[in-house]
Amino acid sequence: MTRAGTCTFCRIVKGELAASVVLDTPDLLAFLDTKPVFRGHVLLVPKLHVTTYKELPAELVPEFALTAQRLEVAVETGLAVPGSMVLVNNVVSQSVPHLHLHVIPRRPKDGLRFWLGPRHPYTDDDPPEGYARRIRAVLDREP
Amino acid sequence: MTRAGTCTFCRIVKGELAASVVLDTPDLLAFLDTKPVFRGHVLLVPKLHVTTYKELPAELVPEFALTAQRLEVAVETGLAVPGSMVLVNNVVSQSVPHLHLHVIPRRPKDGLRFWLGPRHPYTDDDPPEGYARRIRAVLDREP
Repeated sequence: MTRAGTCTFCRIVKGELAASVVLDTPDLLAFLDTKPVFRGHVLLVPKLHVTTYKELPAELVPEFALTAQRLEVAVETGLAVPGSMVLVNNVVSQSVPHLHLHVIPRRPKDGLRFWLGPRHPYTDDDPPEGYARRIRAVLDREP
Repeated sequence: MTRAGTCTFCRIVKGELAASVVLDTPDLLAFLDTKPVFRGHVLLVPKLHVTTYKELPAELVPEFALTAQRLEVAVETGLAVPGSMVLVNNVVSQSVPHLHLHVIPRRPKDGLRFWLGPRHPYTDDDPPEGYARRIRAVLDREP
């Protein structure tokens, strides 16, 4: 299910493109982002080609999530930073359409304080209840 | 291990503070952020009070991660958006010191394109290999 030749991360997984690898397991690979938000910025990918987090097969989710914890510890401890940001972009802002989890080292006042952008508060005309209802409706109809 | 009276999210878990709840399991609670980046912005928290992702007990990690997948589907489908951002801030930029995973609905050109801020490229004087080595050193010394 890899797509070597078309997908950058599949090519890294197959060893066709070089990367600074930090972790390699039978199902997962972690390596440095070549355009780091901050130096030491790690990407964790499944070797299986899937696009978004929701598509990661359930049997791979526990190892993926536990490995993200290990990477959080390794980035914070190894780079001696007090914090980190762990995130996945699905579709929007996703530069490579192969699931990748970012582990980004963070320091206080590192310049990323504006990343959240403007907030979009709820209003009386557009209150939170409608949003919660629409989200719950999907959760409730799952098997 | 909850800290009712001091921690905002523990108070929500205990029902002492109101929230627009979307999911409630024995170990986890998901509800709308009251200051959404975009409306429908969900927070997933463990009922157990832990501060950062790395501190989430291993036995809770699979359900936490699988529930994040369900919330990704529910937010994207329920709110009819093409994408999402799933993230955890650890310590830095973490407004409430109780682990919370954000599931934020995303649309193309939604104004969040600058969230990554300026990149900090590697240089010849500060190449990636040193960072990879420091991160691997922590991973390698784990049991």
